[in-house]
Amino acid sequence: MVATIDSTPRADGFRMPGEFEAHAGTWMLWPQRPDGWRLGAKPAQRAWVELATTIARFEPVTVGVNHDQFLNARGRLPPHIRVLELSSDDAWIRDSGPSFLVNEEGEVRAVDWHFNSWGQIGLAAWDRDDMVARKICEVEGVDRCRAPLVMEGGSFHVDGEGTVLTTEECLLNPNRNPELSKQQIEHYLFEYLNAETIIWLGRGLDPDVTSGHVDDVAFFVRPGVVAVAWTDDPSDHRREILVENYERLRNVTDARERRLEIHKIPLPAEVVITEEEASGIDVVEGTLPLEAGFSQAATYINSYLCNGAVIMPTFDDPCDEPARRALQDLFPERTVVPVPSREIILAGGNIHCVTQQVPLGSR
Amino acid sequence: MVATIDSTPRADGFRMPGEFEAHAGTWMLWPQRPDGWRLGAKPAQRAWVELATTIARFEPVTVGVNHDQFLNARGRLPPHIRVLELSSDDAWIRDSGPSFLVNEEGEVRAVDWHFNSWGQIGLAAWDRDDMVARKICEVEGVDRCRAPLVMEGGSFHVDGEGTVLTTEECLLNPNRNPELSKQQIEHYLFEYLNAETIIWLGRGLDPDVTSGHVDDVAFFVRPGVVAVAWTDDPSDHRREILVENYERLRNVTDARERRLEIHKIPLPAEVVITEEEASGIDVVEGTLPLEAGFSQAATYINSYLCNGAVIMPTFDDPCDEPARRALQDLFPERTVVPVPSREIILAGGNIHCVTQQVPLGSR
Repeated sequence: MVATIDSTPRADGFRMPGEFEAHAGTWMLWPQRPDGWRLGAKPAQRAWVELATTIARFEPVTVGVNHDQFLNARGRLPPHIRVLELSSDDAWIRDSGPSFLVNEEGEVRAVDWHFNSWGQIGLAAWDRDDMVARKICEVEGVDRCRAPLVMEGGSFHVDGEGTVLTTEECLLNPNRNPELSKQQIEHYLFEYLNAETIIWLGRGLDPDVTSGHVDDVAFFVRPGVVAVAWTDDPSDHRREILVENYERLRNVTDARERRLEIHKIPLPAEVVITEEEASGIDVVEGTLPLEAGFSQAATYINSYLCNGAVIMPTFDDPCDEPARRALQDLFPERTVVPVPSREIILAGGNIHCVTQQVPLGSR
Repeated sequence: MVATIDSTPRADGFRMPGEFEAHAGTWMLWPQRPDGWRLGAKPAQRAWVELATTIARFEPVTVGVNHDQFLNARGRLPPHIRVLELSSDDAWIRDSGPSFLVNEEGEVRAVDWHFNSWGQIGLAAWDRDDMVARKICEVEGVDRCRAPLVMEGGSFHVDGEGTVLTTEECLLNPNRNPELSKQQIEHYLFEYLNAETIIWLGRGLDPDVTSGHVDDVAFFVRPGVVAVAWTDDPSDHRREILVENYERLRNVTDARERRLEIHKIPLPAEVVITEEEASGIDVVEGTLPLEAGFSQAATYINSYLCNGAVIMPTFDDPCDEPARRALQDLFPERTVVPVPSREIILAGGNIHCVTQQVPLGSR
């Protein structure tokens, strides 16, 4: 039985687990659009094979793919990775996919947010992306709540104990839910994530791409513990954003009335699209132009927590190794696995943006 | 792990269970092509909802659907029927889908036959149909053998104990495997169905549609027992075909060296496409023309055996009720459920052609 449920997770006793809790598996979507990924997406597809294979060392991975790329994805990915036909406009499943919740019996349910291509600035059309979540619900056999607001999985984090971490820049942006007040948005987050407390940060790092998703600047290591992007360099134009977020985090308590333990993770240099890279990307009116000189928001905070591991992007940057050590210190019980991610960040997101966890539940 | 296996089911100890054995569930594909189904396939889609809902009373049903019909199929089918995106050229999953086998440990494996649109006479293109089987293997999580011959699930039946029932008209037709001798074809059936004995019938009832699929003229009720289409009317042009098949069945033994118990099921009148019906069907060069006056091969033999039931097509024909009684007598432990099927047979097949069972296995 896969039903669309009219009530809310809060009413029915479902909560969204933290990403650090046990997973049943990971979903990804195969990249292919030539206006988003250079050279017909072939370098990105190689990166996907490496990333999916890496995650599959720790938990089952399913990759959804458009029909016209099915045989290629199936041929490139190893047989222990499940490849299912699932149409999409692009591969950012963190944002187009469902957010999974569980109840005390271990039943799994999904929230299907409205998706509008990051405030209608990413893609020329996103009707297939907006159907990704409900198709995944069918495969997973879980009931679905359609939440009445525009939202992306990358625009919030939860601690699994009633706290939501998000940014004003994104959630209050008029390009998402212009008809809703901050209070109404908070109400929906309370209802659909079954949350008690919302921690509002200010801005993210990519105003022109995601309108400042929180998953570039902070995440929950575990309840009460947050990792944040950080730089001490006073000449870095991003420092002001990070300092403000840090100060906000220092001055709040979470849903359990804990003050937060905050850990700083160094920030790498932005990734600037080269002339050669830009020359391999189709120019399509209505999609976010990826031109030479455009800076993408590189950050180790866009790591993905899977069972027993932290999958961490690297950029051939001097901060790669200090960041790895910092993350390893934060997660002594997990393996931190660095994965080169230039081919992902070139299109605007990173490892966290292209993965979506299914919590373990009781199945 | 979903792998493509180079060895054969025979080598690895897998056998194809009879359709009458226990199922894990049933797969169907959603009809939509306007050159195959009248009035934009809307009457057929209503018939699919009724058929899928009927089967789902007895076992889980999954319906595969092209992206552009996903929301409609999901909206029309009840929530306890799983709807998955799965591209196809048409809805005849018996023929485009996999044939599932099991081993003694209850592991399931699939044979993926080459599909060539019934000897290249059905559809103008069938590349999506030829990928249906491998996509279903991914969903089911079963290994796949790609068999080196053109074959459809409707062109053979098995008794689960080493016997294959098929027709010379179809399997030896030069439009299928012109480069293979009868002996080579038998060899592949032995290898890929793990069979010992092939019972060759002569012809089926629809030379112009499937080149005479056996699933219009005979099926296994259980090992050693066969139901056949029958008419006593000497003026019926189909009688000669049925008599010949009957005589062949009377004179063979199966893989266990049993003589067969044969039961005659009355044959309804052919279904003739009306002017009005034909006027609602797109005319597309290269596809089988469905014109007014064309006769389709109605037969109760194209029933589907699912857990505890026989899903039987009806045609508003005087034979409907005698056939139902005859089938009920043959299956005292099952419910025979008549389902009006004119909207299915209009396009050339029937209930057996649009269903594909997954054996229970040990999952």
